[in-house]
Amino acid sequence: MKKRLYYFFGLLFLLNNTFAQESIQHVEPLNWWVGMKNPRLQLLIHGKNIASFKPSIQYKGVSILKVNKVTNPNYLFIDLLITPQTKAGDMKIVFENAAKKTISYTYSLLKREAKAAERVGFNTSDVMYMITPDRFANGNPQNDNVVGYKDTLNRKDLTGRHGGDIEGIIQHLDYIQNLGMTALWINPLLENKQPKTSYHGYAITNFSKIDPRFGSNEDYVRLSKEAKKKGIKLIMDMVLNHCGSEHWWMKDAPTNDWVNFQDSPKVIYSSHHRESLHDPYAAEIDKTMHSDGWFDFTMPDLNQRNPFMANYLIQNSIWWIEYADLGGIRMDTWPYPDKDFMTIWAKRVMDEYPNFNVVGEEWSLNPSIVSAWQRGKVNKNGYVSYLRSLMDFPTNASLVEALNGDEKIWGQGFTKLYQTIANDFVYPNPNDLVIFPDNHDMSRFYTQIKEDFNKFKLGMTFLLTTRGIPQIYYGTEILITNPKSDAHGEIRADMPGGWQGDTKNVFKHIAMTERETEALNFVIQLLQWRKNTPVIHSGKLKHFAPENGVYVQFRYNDKQKVIVILNKNTEAKSLDLARFKEILKPNFRAKDVFHQKTISVKDSLSLEPNSPLILEIFE
Amino acid sequence: MKKRLYYFFGLLFLLNNTFAQESIQHVEPLNWWVGMKNPRLQLLIHGKNIASFKPSIQYKGVSILKVNKVTNPNYLFIDLLITPQTKAGDMKIVFENAAKKTISYTYSLLKREAKAAERVGFNTSDVMYMITPDRFANGNPQNDNVVGYKDTLNRKDLTGRHGGDIEGIIQHLDYIQNLGMTALWINPLLENKQPKTSYHGYAITNFSKIDPRFGSNEDYVRLSKEAKKKGIKLIMDMVLNHCGSEHWWMKDAPTNDWVNFQDSPKVIYSSHHRESLHDPYAAEIDKTMHSDGWFDFTMPDLNQRNPFMANYLIQNSIWWIEYADLGGIRMDTWPYPDKDFMTIWAKRVMDEYPNFNVVGEEWSLNPSIVSAWQRGKVNKNGYVSYLRSLMDFPTNASLVEALNGDEKIWGQGFTKLYQTIANDFVYPNPNDLVIFPDNHDMSRFYTQIKEDFNKFKLGMTFLLTTRGIPQIYYGTEILITNPKSDAHGEIRADMPGGWQGDTKNVFKHIAMTERETEALNFVIQLLQWRKNTPVIHSGKLKHFAPENGVYVQFRYNDKQKVIVILNKNTEAKSLDLARFKEILKPNFRAKDVFHQKTISVKDSLSLEPNSPLILEIFE
Repeated sequence: MKKRLYYFFGLLFLLNNTFAQESIQHVEPLNWWVGMKNPRLQLLIHGKNIASFKPSIQYKGVSILKVNKVTNPNYLFIDLLITPQTKAGDMKIVFENAAKKTISYTYSLLKREAKAAERVGFNTSDVMYMITPDRFANGNPQNDNVVGYKDTLNRKDLTGRHGGDIEGIIQHLDYIQNLGMTALWINPLLENKQPKTSYHGYAITNFSKIDPRFGSNEDYVRLSKEAKKKGIKLIMDMVLNHCGSEHWWMKDAPTNDWVNFQDSPKVIYSSHHRESLHDPYAAEIDKTMHSDGWFDFTMPDLNQRNPFMANYLIQNSIWWIEYADLGGIRMDTWPYPDKDFMTIWAKRVMDEYPNFNVVGEEWSLNPSIVSAWQRGKVNKNGYVSYLRSLMDFPTNASLVEALNGDEKIWGQGFTKLYQTIANDFVYPNPNDLVIFPDNHDMSRFYTQIKEDFNKFKLGMTFLLTTRGIPQIYYGTEILITNPKSDAHGEIRADMPGGWQGDTKNVFKHIAMTERETEALNFVIQLLQWRKNTPVIHSGKLKHFAPENGVYVQFRYNDKQKVIVILNKNTEAKSLDLARFKEILKPNFRAKDVFHQKTISVKDSLSLEPNSPLILEIFE
Repeated sequence: MKKRLYYFFGLLFLLNNTFAQESIQHVEPLNWWVGMKNPRLQLLIHGKNIASFKPSIQYKGVSILKVNKVTNPNYLFIDLLITPQTKAGDMKIVFENAAKKTISYTYSLLKREAKAAERVGFNTSDVMYMITPDRFANGNPQNDNVVGYKDTLNRKDLTGRHGGDIEGIIQHLDYIQNLGMTALWINPLLENKQPKTSYHGYAITNFSKIDPRFGSNEDYVRLSKEAKKKGIKLIMDMVLNHCGSEHWWMKDAPTNDWVNFQDSPKVIYSSHHRESLHDPYAAEIDKTMHSDGWFDFTMPDLNQRNPFMANYLIQNSIWWIEYADLGGIRMDTWPYPDKDFMTIWAKRVMDEYPNFNVVGEEWSLNPSIVSAWQRGKVNKNGYVSYLRSLMDFPTNASLVEALNGDEKIWGQGFTKLYQTIANDFVYPNPNDLVIFPDNHDMSRFYTQIKEDFNKFKLGMTFLLTTRGIPQIYYGTEILITNPKSDAHGEIRADMPGGWQGDTKNVFKHIAMTERETEALNFVIQLLQWRKNTPVIHSGKLKHFAPENGVYVQFRYNDKQKVIVILNKNTEAKSLDLARFKEILKPNFRAKDVFHQKTISVKDSLSLEPNSPLILEIFE
């Protein structure tokens, strides 16, 4: 009985595949789940002349609402209704044409993991580690080159592939966990079948497939599971604005408006005038040129106003969340896709996963622009956003400016940082901002602060104690620099120890300088402490205008109170506590977090030169 | 009969005055009007031991609601109700003490001018000329020195008095009118009986009296009347934050909280941390130090939380509006007085004069902070402001940065200005912003733009055609510079021709350089055109992101359309109009405003090098 069934299904599989090879090249999403909040699903079917076939489904609970044809006969978009009671299983879709030829395709409806809908996205209790996967660790040299993928291994080329992969990350999850990280943002891992400069991952040629040079979809799921065991949420870096020029659909686009400026004889580039989207006096053409112009000639700009494209992208995102058990999304170039689409996208995602989180990249130093995209903002133009988190570029810039600035000039130094944080009144929820010393697109933090270790400690202490969700780029914890230039390849340096034969190894603490070790231990101490200090996650913030090169913040709630003091003076200071009496009564005991000792304090504090001090107050 | 009455009233007058000299030094407001919207009035009575007297009034329609005593027995604050039906006239207030000694004081209730309540404040149809009166013109050398006033004439001293006065302004109203100005903001003219540096006017020692070195209260009223005849609104520069250290009440303060830090052994200065007022994490002490700290040791910080002080200041403002028939107020240091008081002050003023206008000085380059003070802004902290206009410091800074910037670097040059204007979405009403090339506190515009005449023309064209209410500082129209330093005295240079014996005379066009004459004629042409071009006052604005050093704005309504093109290139340009097709159809005729000729335009425009072009489009 078992054997006969096996033969039967094997035959069916063969038949399916035979026809599929002939006539169905792509069906997406690759599968779906029963019991999703939204009972609708739109399947993209791509196959030669598929529009001449009529699909039918006989599966309890599933019905075809509509079959949509587009200008290209090689596509069908099938609207399905999957009622809540539908059972998981393999569903047969039969396509039949006028000549009664049929094609059968088996589509899986899976059972959801327990509490999939209630997944909790990254939040203020987390710190994200950010990795450029090609440059972190080469865990599997077997996939360094893959047949059919032209951009091959070349570690000497700054823009070439260096061989880092998912396996490399999995192998070093213990390092990441030991650092104190609880979330992991990896630059895009999806297929970039581009002829060159494919390592960065932002020219996606298949939205449903991990690039084989990084591993497989299964490897990605394994990473997610292993990370979860270690208390680390996986954050996927997504791109809705564009695809790679070698994306399969670029050779056979469903419609003539699948991408913007699709038939333009020359590439029309984005004007990058993001402000036009908010500008009450904006010319229509400026908005169009910003949103619809291409990011790069290798990156066709997707037209999210096409409803099939819109559905495709939304479902693809939900597919990855469900498939890989994601704990968050980092969305690339947030203000570049159609902004009304982005509202719909975020709403559909958040409706499906109310506790989830998405952080958008809006690289503007103007908090009014950044805040306009945050969920809850009442915008004058009526625009409603559903994006919960944003990358806090203004604070990033202010932090560096503050550390490098001269405290003796009024308005410079820490005052810049204080002013930026004070400006939080423009945000509906500043706690959901993601704060960072650097990322993959800018000079390394240690380079930006001119390799001043004291400033490093001050800066990291600020980031890991103030409001928001910190993110640290791999290697910043060991003071990686880019002294030669700020070329992307210099910034995204190989992590020492990630490659066989590396003489220096961060993971095994081999051949590290004393300073690097000191930095690493400093970050570990801070992160591990932060992880177990709820008042930093959810306490209120009160800060005092910097005076004489000293910036003081408090985090507090009913149970805990922490004082964070940043002294940028090159000499020791005695800090009179009278100024803080509204929150701090004199005569108290406190735990000095860095020195791991309990101290008694009367009415002043001794500050070491050029140092941060964190005290947990016992009152 | 008549003669006897005369004797009788003469005797009464003598008696009154005799007692008044002895016991009543100040009664403020100096008078009041019947028929004000607010029927209440609080009189400040200052006189030796006046608190031991009980006041009474027998005047139809007027009743004493309450007599308030304070800690200092030399003050009484009398709350009056003046019913709407009350007739104008002189009202006797009789003060009587326990020993039946009486003092009589005659207080005038005047009739209001017709439509006093409906007065229209400055608005977008206006351009304000701003004058530092000590430095504009010495119309009356008789008042250069006044007995009892220690700070005497010294034209060689940058911080000394130079002799300019109200008469000097009156004598040159024709110049101001000819310029095309319709409003006049003069730095404070109120008494500054300070031992030195009194010329700037911001250390007021009597809030109800014009400084005699500038003239009299009657001269000020005469200025207002003469200006009004020429279509020029008078804007009074007011200070509610502080007084001069030699103010009469500083020797005999009504209460011990009349000014902030009143009894401090040393002067406590403002921290100038204006952001603390909006900061969701602000320490209370930072807010206090900003608002209550002194601006200068010569400027005691008034405590507007004292209700008698609050009423005094509000009534004083209304008194000047009514007395001098004001067309607006420029309010100094808006964010420095108690912010809740400022709401009440502005509401009381605007309730009395619904069409009036006040512009507040908030010298912040952060539009989020500036906009937080504008009427209609929904602030996250719930703060409600009633201030209609604000000085647009962000645009001022951006304009200079834009003109000096390099158009070839992305994001520099005109893009800075475009971004600032595009940021107007933060303001409830950006049209009410007052825009300016410079003012009395910063380097002259021509110095800031490195004495580049082309940039001068571009900048002035921008300011006089974009949204907002322009303000021009005296002398900027003839390219006054401050090459030596940005010391206030250098910036506030004497207007050539304002003094007897001046060899150079702007008013009579004597000894001016060709460039100065060119500048003056350019400004006159622009201003006179603006004055008669309603679309600039109230039309919509549409602008296009700067490209290749060319920034284009349109002002338009149903009837008119104006295109303003700023070409910063050193070479001539042909501007393809295709980009503007959403607002401008090809093939039109237009009036070239600068060249005063009609031109026919097809699909491109020839732009002169480094020049502005304004076209009134006929479609």
